[in-house]
Amino acid sequence: MKARVYVSFKPTVLDPQGQTIHHALNGLGHKSIAGVRQGKYFEIELAPGSVKEQIAKEMDQIARDVLANPVMEDYRVEFLD
Amino acid sequence: MKARVYVSFKPTVLDPQGQTIHHALNGLGHKSIAGVRQGKYFEIELAPGSVKEQIAKEMDQIARDVLANPVMEDYRVEFLD
Repeated sequence: MKARVYVSFKPTVLDPQGQTIHHALNGLGHKSIAGVRQGKYFEIELAPGSVKEQIAKEMDQIARDVLANPVMEDYRVEFLD
Repeated sequence: MKARVYVSFKPTVLDPQGQTIHHALNGLGHKSIAGVRQGKYFEIELAPGSVKEQIAKEMDQIARDVLANPVMEDYRVEFLD
């Protein structure tokens, strides 16, 4: 089983890297882009025999404590079979 | 409408950052983690009135040419209404 954790800045936090990409894309002629925000993404391979119900709490703890900074960032955990 | 682009190293490419996170998590006692790979993730806000069918080709081009390095990285584009 796999888990995916997506980490991105909270909407209220300025994202200069995303803004730079946005301006670069507009400069390249992609006028249909109204905004870009960059985030991180972790693909986590879980040990065989992991049960989603048991692992969900642990993954949430890992995302909150290790992968994301909850002061500035939001995270989202997703499970794949 | 929004698009999300996920960029990660191809499976054959070594990911030292992911390995470091993997070892750190194991060291913290999370023994159910069998592997970690890190990637990037872009949340792209599209101009109002964008039609998915028209924008899909442009987004694929942006992902391939600007956001990812297709020699080393895979990408995946996802649309949200």
